[in-house]
Amino acid sequence: MSRIAVIPGDGIGQEVIAEAQKVLAVALPGYESTEYDLGARRYNRTGEVLPDSVLSELDEHDAILLGAIGDPSVPPGVLERGLLLKLRFEFDQYVNLRPSRLFPGASSPLADVKPGDIDFVVVREGTEGLYTGAGGNLHTGSAAEIATEESLNTRYGTERVVRDAFERARRRRGHLTLVHKTNVLVHAGGLWKRAFDEVAVEYPDVTTEYQHVDAAAMFLVNRPHTFDVIVTDNLFGDILTDIAAAVTGGIGLAATGSINPDHTHPSTFEPVHGSAPDIAGQGVADPVAAIGSTALLLEHLGRADAAVAVNAAVERELAGRESGATIRTGEVGDRVAADVAGQLS
Amino acid sequence: MSRIAVIPGDGIGQEVIAEAQKVLAVALPGYESTEYDLGARRYNRTGEVLPDSVLSELDEHDAILLGAIGDPSVPPGVLERGLLLKLRFEFDQYVNLRPSRLFPGASSPLADVKPGDIDFVVVREGTEGLYTGAGGNLHTGSAAEIATEESLNTRYGTERVVRDAFERARRRRGHLTLVHKTNVLVHAGGLWKRAFDEVAVEYPDVTTEYQHVDAAAMFLVNRPHTFDVIVTDNLFGDILTDIAAAVTGGIGLAATGSINPDHTHPSTFEPVHGSAPDIAGQGVADPVAAIGSTALLLEHLGRADAAVAVNAAVERELAGRESGATIRTGEVGDRVAADVAGQLS
Ligand SMILES: CC(C)[C@H](C(=O)O)[C@@H](O)C(=O)O
Ligand SMILES: CC(C)[C@H](C(=O)O)[C@@H](O)C(=O)O
Repeated sequence: MSRIAVIPGDGIGQEVIAEAQKVLAVALPGYESTEYDLGARRYNRTGEVLPDSVLSELDEHDAILLGAIGDPSVPPGVLERGLLLKLRFEFDQYVNLRPSRLFPGASSPLADVKPGDIDFVVVREGTEGLYTGAGGNLHTGSAAEIATEESLNTRYGTERVVRDAFERARRRRGHLTLVHKTNVLVHAGGLWKRAFDEVAVEYPDVTTEYQHVDAAAMFLVNRPHTFDVIVTDNLFGDILTDIAAAVTGGIGLAATGSINPDHTHPSTFEPVHGSAPDIAGQGVADPVAAIGSTALLLEHLGRADAAVAVNAAVERELAGRESGATIRTGEVGDRVAADVAGQLS
Repeated sequence: MSRIAVIPGDGIGQEVIAEAQKVLAVALPGYESTEYDLGARRYNRTGEVLPDSVLSELDEHDAILLGAIGDPSVPPGVLERGLLLKLRFEFDQYVNLRPSRLFPGASSPLADVKPGDIDFVVVREGTEGLYTGAGGNLHTGSAAEIATEESLNTRYGTERVVRDAFERARRRRGHLTLVHKTNVLVHAGGLWKRAFDEVAVEYPDVTTEYQHVDAAAMFLVNRPHTFDVIVTDNLFGDILTDIAAAVTGGIGLAATGSINPDHTHPSTFEPVHGSAPDIAGQGVADPVAAIGSTALLLEHLGRADAAVAVNAAVERELAGRESGATIRTGEVGDRVAADVAGQLS
């Protein structure tokens, strides 16, 4: 039986996760779930972000399903670093996966694109680079202040994520783009390029390409259809995936997995959107991104058939919507769950 | 008399700079120019990128007008670091200025935008951050390799560029957005935020906003009209300005200045596009970006009236083009120069 830790979190996180669980109930029948109260409410009540005991309990699960974390009442960075990034680092979630597809019914800000035109995934490194926290300040607050941030990169960490990206490219359209900034960040860029080129030899069936991050950012806007799989470092991936979300109609629909491909610790799956306190509690939040994250979860747990069914149901849900009509969170979950049930029966 | 150092560079750089000089001849009558043979050809011939003696000579000028640098025959990074970045650091060009406007006749990949809708400038820091070259590799090429990149930030360097951005915002629509990643890069982010907030007190007439770089990248795509002035660090600025170029119709039209606002050394002005070896020598390269960079140069030299005239002429040139028609490099320069002459006479 699969054991799923559920962290609904704050704001609309709670609402969309309820719908994701409806879908999971039919796609992964009999799964066991434990709910964890983490996020802004817990922090405001107890001052705790992620106690070690909870971290150990989470570690007993096969996967984590997360809604959204955050509230204006919490100082910026506290929950991001103490919870989201902590999970990535503690659970060695080195593949941060972000599929980008233009769904039917989604409205892209780009002219001349139609559903199906945009379909790529970004494989973002999740445990190294500028995200380790290395760095410091001297003479803080004075005119003499200096601050450093250090990007730490290992061949070990780079090679494993590059290899994962080649595997994904092989299972898709067979094209992999490495994005970095080798002409300026020569040290880390050199390491990434060497790892990439050496692993590429093992994948003669995958065509490869290199782009500087500034060029890639531009190409995501003016020729997004040319991408299949992108592999890049932690910070570049953070920026590129938001551009990807923008061109496919906003973060409202995007799902992401922070994945430990070796299954030595649980992976986290979540919608990319935030807790949206402005619309929380009204039952109008769109749960498709949360539901989409269950598809990534299912795939990670080896249930590719169920993942395909969930994605197909999400696609039908979006295609069937009248543009501009308000959605009801609970009805969306019911419809998608019923669709999935029909497919898998 | 203004002394302008001209570095035509490689490929279409030579062609477009000739047109920029036609315009400069009428906009800055009697200016003295010295031409410097730098770039891929010089490097391939002599192995030299930017000899110290040339650097000293360049330093005697009021400004540098640069075409484009680079050729596939030169290893990546050599000319970028040895010439472009070297000029920024040696000449303390701490304001990297990139205006982004959607010109009439330009085709944006965005739906539902029309000329005038997008009009902002990015003030990118040019002498600090991840561009200093600090960092290194250990056990290079082995499975044990590690690589570091260090972002170095000073209050001095941050405050001066922030102040420049506030000044520009005051002269424009009075809105300034700081972009960083304070929730992850806490050390540098903290320094930037402190400097920004303290300088803001001196500019009560400028409204301010903070955005994380990932959010800003998305907003540049799905609501670019909300920006007036953006101030950000060196690497974030590199990425954001390419997104800005994309949404305004590509780097073919964008101009940039690497500016030393204190005039202690010359500033460099150039089109954002590259040397485009594929179309070089055919007389079909569009010189409007190079001409646009002369407008930035004129403004820097205190000739705001001439800068306005050049921009107006460029706008008319673009508005008058039939879409899809081939342009002739030399004719564009003649037309724009004549227009500027008419305005200033
Ligand atoms: C919340 C933040 C720490 C996080 C990141 O920077 O990785 C987010 O932007 C993301 O992309 O998951
Ligand atoms: C050529 C390269 C070093 C440069 C940079 O990264 O700054 C370029 O991309 C730019 O934006 O001027």
